[in-house]
Amino acid sequence: MKKPATTQAPIHELIANRWSGRAYDAGKPVTQTQIISLLEAARWAPSCYGDQPWRFIVWNKNADAKAWQQALDCLVSGNQAWAKDAPVLVLVAADSLFGHNQQPNRWAQYDTGAAAENLCLQAEAIGLMAHQMGGFNPDLARETFNIPSQFTLMAFITVGHPADIATVTGEALTRETAARTRKPLAELFFTESWGKPIV
Amino acid sequence: MKKPATTQAPIHELIANRWSGRAYDAGKPVTQTQIISLLEAARWAPSCYGDQPWRFIVWNKNADAKAWQQALDCLVSGNQAWAKDAPVLVLVAADSLFGHNQQPNRWAQYDTGAAAENLCLQAEAIGLMAHQMGGFNPDLARETFNIPSQFTLMAFITVGHPADIATVTGEALTRETAARTRKPLAELFFTESWGKPIV
Repeated sequence: MKKPATTQAPIHELIANRWSGRAYDAGKPVTQTQIISLLEAARWAPSCYGDQPWRFIVWNKNADAKAWQQALDCLVSGNQAWAKDAPVLVLVAADSLFGHNQQPNRWAQYDTGAAAENLCLQAEAIGLMAHQMGGFNPDLARETFNIPSQFTLMAFITVGHPADIATVTGEALTRETAARTRKPLAELFFTESWGKPIV
Repeated sequence: MKKPATTQAPIHELIANRWSGRAYDAGKPVTQTQIISLLEAARWAPSCYGDQPWRFIVWNKNADAKAWQQALDCLVSGNQAWAKDAPVLVLVAADSLFGHNQQPNRWAQYDTGAAAENLCLQAEAIGLMAHQMGGFNPDLARETFNIPSQFTLMAFITVGHPADIATVTGEALTRETAARTRKPLAELFFTESWGKPIV
């Protein structure tokens, strides 16, 4: 289901069409090549000093259902309710220290957000749908998967094929077909000085 | 100049071709429609609770050269040396507090990184080149442009038309034509548990 962004100037269809749906087709697996394609997109994001501070763990239900279930268990219940239909789960972490000198990297989370966005856009490019979530238990994830404290856990991402909208009903249908919205340009984007709207 | 990413699985050309060059065509302005297109791409990035924590200030040399110069002065000298040829400068800030409850937003920088990446990809989509920099003086930028302390200053971005590579010489040419590199997939991307390489 396409829900392109409404914009005052044209934007690339990849960016316009990416959106965070929740209705997945549980029966349609994601291939290993598709997973590598998603990760390559993340890999080529820019980063401060070329540090590439992002780390991703990927769980593919069709490769290791037990590990995938452990990942699903880290989500808050409201997210588990729909994420259970996504065959791929991804955990995104940011290295708090620069690799070249082990000093704090104040761009680690910023750069990691860029890498995750590239993954989501690449999903759109190959007919998949990605949805990022902040609603998970970072302590449980860290303990379950033995993640060093140096890495900040930022988000889980669901990946899978979007469900055929004709098969979606009830509340899920309402949610899935709701209009996408954003704040007006003038609230977020300024020109010349702070608070002076660009349009 | 195209320098597409080398990947083990195909990725969308927009993501493959985006790169952070430094050689700009100082004589070719960026239009207001192009600027709005860049900001619309940023605007439609995803964010936690839909907070849209990013704020951007845009300086267009061809609209207000004095304000643009004030922005350029915030960069470290090594960046000023080449950023002076970029007709558009952008400052990216992250709101440290959620809009709905004024509590700390731990995803603010992560989400802001996604919005900035969308801007850079949209630049590529319309034949422009964007380059993010962490090398600037945040105290000077905050004072010059009166930016509230609630907002963390993350990056400056140069935007403009790439220079015709035939006009670039010396060290700049070496830098501009150098191969793009990234760490191997196996170092950053794991499967099932921390540290287990995906490939």
